Amino acid sequence: MPLAAPILQELGQLLGPDQVLTAKEDLIPYSFDGTAALREMPGCIAFPTTTEQVVQVLQLANRQQIPVVTRGSGTGLSGGSLPSPDSIVLCLVHLNRILELDQANLTLLAEAGATTQAISDASTAAGLFYPPDPGSMKISTIGGNVAENSGGLRGLKYGVTRNYVMGLEVVLPQGELLWTGNKCVKDVAGYSLKDLFVGSEGTLGVITKVLLRLIPRPAAKQTMVATFAQMDQAADAVSAIIAAPIIPCTLEFLDRTTIGCVEDYARIGLPLDCEALLLMETDGHPAVVADEAAQMERICRAKGAKEVRVARDEAEATRLASARRTAFSALARVAPTTILEDATVPRSELAKMIRFIQEIARKYNLRIGTFGHMGDGNLHPTCLTDERNQEEMHRVELAFKEIFAEAVRLGGTITGEHGIGVAKKSFLPEFAGDAQMRVLRELRRTLDPKQILNPGKLFDPS
Amino acid sequence: MPLAAPILQELGQLLGPDQVLTAKEDLIPYSFDGTAALREMPGCIAFPTTTEQVVQVLQLANRQQIPVVTRGSGTGLSGGSLPSPDSIVLCLVHLNRILELDQANLTLLAEAGATTQAISDASTAAGLFYPPDPGSMKISTIGGNVAENSGGLRGLKYGVTRNYVMGLEVVLPQGELLWTGNKCVKDVAGYSLKDLFVGSEGTLGVITKVLLRLIPRPAAKQTMVATFAQMDQAADAVSAIIAAPIIPCTLEFLDRTTIGCVEDYARIGLPLDCEALLLMETDGHPAVVADEAAQMERICRAKGAKEVRVARDEAEATRLASARRTAFSALARVAPTTILEDATVPRSELAKMIRFIQEIARKYNLRIGTFGHMGDGNLHPTCLTDERNQEEMHRVELAFKEIFAEAVRLGGTITGEHGIGVAKKSFLPEFAGDAQMRVLRELRRTLDPKQILNPGKLFDPS
Repeated sequence: MPLAAPILQELGQLLGPDQVLTAKEDLIPYSFDGTAALREMPGCIAFPTTTEQVVQVLQLANRQQIPVVTRGSGTGLSGGSLPSPDSIVLCLVHLNRILELDQANLTLLAEAGATTQAISDASTAAGLFYPPDPGSMKISTIGGNVAENSGGLRGLKYGVTRNYVMGLEVVLPQGELLWTGNKCVKDVAGYSLKDLFVGSEGTLGVITKVLLRLIPRPAAKQTMVATFAQMDQAADAVSAIIAAPIIPCTLEFLDRTTIGCVEDYARIGLPLDCEALLLMETDGHPAVVADEAAQMERICRAKGAKEVRVARDEAEATRLASARRTAFSALARVAPTTILEDATVPRSELAKMIRFIQEIARKYNLRIGTFGHMGDGNLHPTCLTDERNQEEMHRVELAFKEIFAEAVRLGGTITGEHGIGVAKKSFLPEFAGDAQMRVLRELRRTLDPKQILNPGKLFDPS
Repeated sequence: MPLAAPILQELGQLLGPDQVLTAKEDLIPYSFDGTAALREMPGCIAFPTTTEQVVQVLQLANRQQIPVVTRGSGTGLSGGSLPSPDSIVLCLVHLNRILELDQANLTLLAEAGATTQAISDASTAAGLFYPPDPGSMKISTIGGNVAENSGGLRGLKYGVTRNYVMGLEVVLPQGELLWTGNKCVKDVAGYSLKDLFVGSEGTLGVITKVLLRLIPRPAAKQTMVATFAQMDQAADAVSAIIAAPIIPCTLEFLDRTTIGCVEDYARIGLPLDCEALLLMETDGHPAVVADEAAQMERICRAKGAKEVRVARDEAEATRLASARRTAFSALARVAPTTILEDATVPRSELAKMIRFIQEIARKYNLRIGTFGHMGDGNLHPTCLTDERNQEEMHRVELAFKEIFAEAVRLGGTITGEHGIGVAKKSFLPEFAGDAQMRVLRELRRTLDPKQILNPGKLFDPS
């Protein structure tokens, strides 16, 4: 249902009439994000172009008690930017300027709607490096990355989005503007509010500007792919690499189902008779890269790899890496609905977790391809299904329930990088426990007493 | 004033009578921490030996509305563990076991009272590395490090304590037990409570266990010292090193006053006719270390260093590094009272800040030696004074007020690694601004409604 006319009129006055969409056909593209099987019609879409406009919209929303859901490109995988019914969807894609790149202090300041790719490109152009690389980085916005604390393929060596956030401009739920953080590497003045907003999934404030830490660009990189007949050989190779000790920038895994789909799709020439494929990249000083690459190759062979291919040049590196980069698309094309999950366990429990997922797929007669970040224990079991098949969707639900329970039992978490949103909401209370849930709810109530922002996400009030 | 007899009796029953100190002569050693000129008598000292006892003490304190101040070794430099009058000082030094070192997942689990040195040693023994190295690490406790988000000499390359905290066991102010975090490199389930507790200076909960991330031990290290006739040459050298780009693990600075005091004290053979000394260390793969050391030497010479000494062996490296490690002790011995501050600015503003401190010292006729972490912009202007001289102490106060105002004006912070405590409380409201102060106070009230924990620290309620 569209919002009441006086509210839409006031929004139009605040933002300009062109910056507010209300027609049903205009709302439909904003009625979902990247999460399968979730749809909800918003009341309108508002496109602010300044922080001041965000302040005004939140003040209006508070006065009128209208829910506000912030979004960027809508690539989220837990329904975190799914509209609440009749909400104002605050779409920040026009707040997308890169405001400053400070070479002396290695920082970049951008508006929240700038894409991750634009930030990566601006950093590269300055000879610097912004490491977080979530799968959707070509279109995902940095504000969304911060709100979800996005990960990516480089988590083990370089960390996740949180590790690169130095400061934030945030509009609080009641429309107050706050800046937290600065260009200092060290700052311990007061509680770290910045760290409270990172990963808060749009429930504590609207992030409008982000100050990011950049690092020097690694001078060299080497890419290789190893295939293993047995899963345990691959897991042993990963353990031996870490024990070497080598912390590769990429240490990715594909299972047999995923390898098959990737090969069908991208024709890379991957062997189909293996249980596990590891994509490994080391980056940094050329001498280190040469040394680590040689060690990783040796370790993989010693652990029984069927084949180890080391990229001879940039083109081959890109081709090998594409085995992993195309994994999701390759899986997605074989079924009408693809449910991409991110059960995560301590690295030592990976082989156990992968085997468990395979057993569960058999138990519930489902097609699940698993790929993910072997280095940091973040797996993406991906269910190939059809949301119109209700009976199968029910089995999918039961399967993932068991998968998350096992992840937690192994000392893991219910979400490594996709967030809770609405998709994982029912799993959070048991995972977090009563004391933690109470604190989470109280923090929410403290910052957003009217529960204007992204209501019903993360957890229900109580 | 000691606490009422029934309360002391109940504490004795909870902890055992030997674990509660009440005699005045026993309380005096706990009436101060590492911060100059601050003293306050507690009501008693309680030494819990289990988390369960901490829970019980907080439940008692809540019921009876008695303030509780947590402390470890009392090395804090902002009065964060200064007792509140008639408080229970909860001293965690007997909760000091290292519970687990997990080689596969590169983690260490310790009780809060374990010393930083013990954690560093345990990591080293396993071939691993815990990088944060606050100045007092030989005796400081990990719980205190987490509560203050301690820094150290390796901040630029390796980050600070926060970057190594993966999980925490915390007793909430009302005596509820909470565990937050796990061994997963990625975890985005709910707000990051762990990051709220890190740096909360004992005001939001009592940290009882800490799960830390370890990293592989660097295989090689090279240490060098360069001296410069002019401050600006040293600052230019630092900028050129970062632009190279090299991120050294140590990039420390001493000014003329500090160099003189260090030479008097330690007889290292430092030249006395220079304005700035840089201590530089690079660590990592041997090829990288050799390469970076050669580059740093070349850069320092190109920027006009009078002398560059590269350590020929471990013994010389230790001797050169001692120039920086002994800086505080060397300054402390020349005056009855040493006020160690930590004004912090973006790296690009360092030379300006150092010059400003020198001007202020002249303006107020004070002896201020400055040393600190040039790589991360964290300076320690150290005032050599006498707290019995009230007129001089007043000038010290005025001088630091100007120094902090300038740090903030240059985009810096009022505390880089020592915390707010009581020492910086009056500076926080202007630095943080109204919106942020409101949120800080509300968070505090939410977690500790009766303001039992460390009352009057960080900020006053309102």
